[in-house]
Amino acid sequence: MRDVAVIGASMTQFGQREEWIQELLAQAGIACLRDGNVGPEAVEHLYVSNMASGEFEGQTGAPNALAHDLGVMPAFTERVDQTSSSGGAGIYTAWQSIASEASDVTLLVGGEKMTHRSTPETTDVIASVTHPVEYKHGVTLPSFAGLTARLYLDTYDAPRESLAAVAVKNHRNGVDNPHAQFQKEVDKETVLDSPIVADPLRLYDFCPITDGSSALLFCPLEDAPEYTDRYASIAGIGGATDTHVVHERSDPTTMGGVVESGQQAYEMSGYYPEDIDVAELHDMFTILEFLQCEGLGFFEPGRAWEAAQNGETARDGRLPVNTSGGLKSKGHPLGASGVAQAYEIYKQLIDDAGPRQVEADVGLACNVGGFGNCVTTAIMEAER
Amino acid sequence: MRDVAVIGASMTQFGQREEWIQELLAQAGIACLRDGNVGPEAVEHLYVSNMASGEFEGQTGAPNALAHDLGVMPAFTERVDQTSSSGGAGIYTAWQSIASEASDVTLLVGGEKMTHRSTPETTDVIASVTHPVEYKHGVTLPSFAGLTARLYLDTYDAPRESLAAVAVKNHRNGVDNPHAQFQKEVDKETVLDSPIVADPLRLYDFCPITDGSSALLFCPLEDAPEYTDRYASIAGIGGATDTHVVHERSDPTTMGGVVESGQQAYEMSGYYPEDIDVAELHDMFTILEFLQCEGLGFFEPGRAWEAAQNGETARDGRLPVNTSGGLKSKGHPLGASGVAQAYEIYKQLIDDAGPRQVEADVGLACNVGGFGNCVTTAIMEAER
Repeated sequence: MRDVAVIGASMTQFGQREEWIQELLAQAGIACLRDGNVGPEAVEHLYVSNMASGEFEGQTGAPNALAHDLGVMPAFTERVDQTSSSGGAGIYTAWQSIASEASDVTLLVGGEKMTHRSTPETTDVIASVTHPVEYKHGVTLPSFAGLTARLYLDTYDAPRESLAAVAVKNHRNGVDNPHAQFQKEVDKETVLDSPIVADPLRLYDFCPITDGSSALLFCPLEDAPEYTDRYASIAGIGGATDTHVVHERSDPTTMGGVVESGQQAYEMSGYYPEDIDVAELHDMFTILEFLQCEGLGFFEPGRAWEAAQNGETARDGRLPVNTSGGLKSKGHPLGASGVAQAYEIYKQLIDDAGPRQVEADVGLACNVGGFGNCVTTAIMEAER
Repeated sequence: MRDVAVIGASMTQFGQREEWIQELLAQAGIACLRDGNVGPEAVEHLYVSNMASGEFEGQTGAPNALAHDLGVMPAFTERVDQTSSSGGAGIYTAWQSIASEASDVTLLVGGEKMTHRSTPETTDVIASVTHPVEYKHGVTLPSFAGLTARLYLDTYDAPRESLAAVAVKNHRNGVDNPHAQFQKEVDKETVLDSPIVADPLRLYDFCPITDGSSALLFCPLEDAPEYTDRYASIAGIGGATDTHVVHERSDPTTMGGVVESGQQAYEMSGYYPEDIDVAELHDMFTILEFLQCEGLGFFEPGRAWEAAQNGETARDGRLPVNTSGGLKSKGHPLGASGVAQAYEIYKQLIDDAGPRQVEADVGLACNVGGFGNCVTTAIMEAER
């Protein structure tokens, strides 16, 4: 198994964009090749992380169109879909392509165009990942989040304010991210007074609907210095599933896919929770940041809420979480989100995170699909 | 890079099915695990080749649902989409998962459910792979096929009857395939008198719209004997793209992706066109069988039509092509087709092809997406 490096990264502005999916993917792809000092002719594999360009735009075959637009033909290409965690699955697949020696240069571009559709249309496409039986009863992802948040607060005697602390922190981080959809702070009162969506969760507990694209460039670690001195390595990676039917889980506050994919990544890397210096977690709903903090072993079960309230996960805390602003303020263009998480970790590890910079030698990105149905976790290491 | 074996295969009945996509995938998945003597707990990666369950059925997240149904959790899973060649891309990805040492047992299940939608709806989803500019002018895949067939016949002074010979041959082969959608012969006159679709191509030059699923099971070659004595190896594999805009190609009778992916597979395997004993080619339109026969070097450019007329590609010919009946008579459930091609080659190489059996030590499967936009070619070898 060859060691794998990330040698370039890019992301477009996240938010409400006029461009359609092909243009967003092309913008990120071109910027990423430029960032890695790699010409299109060198690209052997091109992966596109995208959940639903067919449903959202009536456009299929996006990878081929992108290969054409970027001039990377005859590179092998395919679309990788793992719903909300398509980006993480794309990283897993791109990593495999280098590790297996099938490719010497792999470009991954994740993207989604969603805001042109109405919110009901968009959420209905997303809800189609749930089990038909649960879907039929109206238990979509926000409902699961509300039910789980209630259970978590009750089980661990945690205050509602602790969830708001996640939103406040991630919005604060987003202020310093020029690519973020929302670059403005929110205070606790705003979160707590926002309209209820799925009790106890309110509007500001949810990430927005977003258009955007993000890209990463991979090569064998030993080849990386040929291209750039700004590279990091994939130290460990894991991917795992949990039940499709959420109500079959014995403890909904434990996400099995998070635990399992994290363990795989820890074992492969030789790094463990105490070694992680910075993390990007999938805060599609504020409660998910707690579940991942605990599932990945950063905090004991039932303690992540305290850590959020105490500032331990703030940018100047013991373990900065979501320095990018997270999905909460950066936005969540489904196929792009996992890629953009790794973009942030890469930037932190090459000391190019600008005002968001923290001290970090090892970073972790955890990307969650469905309601924890499928999860990928990647651990990246600085190679300064 | 680890050598990779196929240790099991399955396919459902192809045709018009009542079951929805999840059930079809589960049927093939269960049968494949049984065929390879592998319990679900051993599966580390599960790939689902599927183009458009969201568009056809409003169902996303099929891989997760399948992981649940098969009991393979916490296996890593993702959907692989490369339009019509999603199955071939799935083989490529599954191969990478074993070659990279990321997985020791990988299950690939391809499937599509299409016949419940009207023909215009179905063809419109398929046509969404074309470039918007070409699509807007109504140049969908059948149109490209007609234009290319006309060019081929004119360039090589080939008779219209030679295209009909492909349909006649593949229907004859399909008679002996109990999983085929059509298990009946057609004669040349029937093909030539069928309604025109895209001149010079007529109804019987086209594959049908089909529901179905097919699966393959992979492990490291060195582990294969632990599971079964019915295994074959992946000797070589290649994947490549051509222009998204078809009219930019200098010679539409040469499919660049076929040529390039074939060369990759030949180079990796050390086998060359003269070594191939049996081939499954992507005969979505009869003309495509000629283009692949020539692009893969089985016959000189402009000679494949003679080979078809002379019976050289018949089951008792020099190089049997589409012993399964091909997409033409077996059917073409998009995500399943590439997997089902490899199913046939595997069955031939383990001497389990029943009345379709030919003498073969080395077989090739070529799966084409779009109008040659993306192509994967796999060469498999008997390990008797």
